[in-house]
Amino acid sequence: MTQVVILGAGNVATHLYRAFQKSEEIEVVQVYNHRPEKLANFTETFTTTAISELKEADIYIFALKDDAILKMANIVPDFGALYLHTSGGIGIDALGKFRNYGVFYPLQTFSAKRELDFSEIPMCLEANSEKNLQKTKKLAAGISEKLFETNSKQRKALHASAVFVCNFTNHLYTIGADICQKNDLSFELLKPLIRETASKIEQLSPEEAQTGPAIRNDRGTIEGHLELLNQNQKNIYELLTASIYNLHGKKL
Amino acid sequence: MTQVVILGAGNVATHLYRAFQKSEEIEVVQVYNHRPEKLANFTETFTTTAISELKEADIYIFALKDDAILKMANIVPDFGALYLHTSGGIGIDALGKFRNYGVFYPLQTFSAKRELDFSEIPMCLEANSEKNLQKTKKLAAGISEKLFETNSKQRKALHASAVFVCNFTNHLYTIGADICQKNDLSFELLKPLIRETASKIEQLSPEEAQTGPAIRNDRGTIEGHLELLNQNQKNIYELLTASIYNLHGKKL
Repeated sequence: MTQVVILGAGNVATHLYRAFQKSEEIEVVQVYNHRPEKLANFTETFTTTAISELKEADIYIFALKDDAILKMANIVPDFGALYLHTSGGIGIDALGKFRNYGVFYPLQTFSAKRELDFSEIPMCLEANSEKNLQKTKKLAAGISEKLFETNSKQRKALHASAVFVCNFTNHLYTIGADICQKNDLSFELLKPLIRETASKIEQLSPEEAQTGPAIRNDRGTIEGHLELLNQNQKNIYELLTASIYNLHGKKL
Repeated sequence: MTQVVILGAGNVATHLYRAFQKSEEIEVVQVYNHRPEKLANFTETFTTTAISELKEADIYIFALKDDAILKMANIVPDFGALYLHTSGGIGIDALGKFRNYGVFYPLQTFSAKRELDFSEIPMCLEANSEKNLQKTKKLAAGISEKLFETNSKQRKALHASAVFVCNFTNHLYTIGADICQKNDLSFELLKPLIRETASKIEQLSPEEAQTGPAIRNDRGTIEGHLELLNQNQKNIYELLTASIYNLHGKKL
């Protein structure tokens, strides 16, 4: 049984906690957060708001925002255990003060209200020694079937990619919803298209899957769309249209 | 039994043809295209490359590119049947020379290699009379469970929204794949995230679902990502980050 302490009580911490609870090989012995009200959801385990009360464990997981990881790494003592952080954005060296450290980055978007199947989530792993990597892999294997070794540079690149395919994509959904709302249309109308756009790339590469007026620089359609948009939406439409045409149009 | 002639042999025509083939109430009596090699896939029906050989039918469907619809509408004679086009981008008036006309717009992205479940595809319908609208609805009900009446202005807005949530989103996937490739990472790593990003908005509004460094204008993370990108990717990253922050950040 691997004993784990989770530092943090946000979305990543909460989802990791639930996934660990389902594993028979992992026991969460404590969840730490400095704000007691954030710990209200972790009723089935010991919680604490004081670093001085941290329990002994095999692994301590910093499931915190990037700046909080850096801050907490300075405060948490080195018990000789393994210390991991869950961030895609910062290097392994953020925990370099500990003897045993690494990264345990689940590549997924976490919202409090969504249940997730952790077994499908790619776990991007790194550690400061082969022995620690094996421990990190064992922990990850307890919750996911998809383990990947990635160095800090690769993880940063993955994080940047994730911003494009998740954060920016979701913002395009927001713009789609806004255009619908302004034209008395239900956003429900777009959902099958959103589903199919995401499903298509399971079978085709995104380059092969590209469709739409931008590929052929169909100015009539493009100008018609621009008329409907506000200035910010126009800027985004024009930049992405030019980017698609530069990539695809020249090959036609 | 409603008899249909399809004008066109591209992705929309092909998928409509397959959907009609499955319906017991619809018979495709002919597929027209001016290029014989494009008709090779339509083996189970009569095909023609000559307008003069068009068969009699209840409904003629212009499943063509926008400019081809406008051109063909001039050439096809008015047999008194119902004439429909499948475009999101052009108005109902494109077929205004016929006595009975309307629009039969399936809001979906069509690729030759993908099988689609038409029953889930929103059919956006319009016609020049109540009687013709009922006929158009009856045809749509033969292949889909999701019928919507939309006027030409709404359809244009839907088409613009579709460009954002489908064409532009797919281009963001392409950029994600490019960043992965340049960093020796498999695009497979991003697929669960892409799936979840699309699934999330079945439950949350896209505004609620927004996550990432742009919301809080996390400059450290943002600058780190920009270092990894080419100039075009940087321009897109900065514009979308500013757009997200302007929408969400001010509310924090």
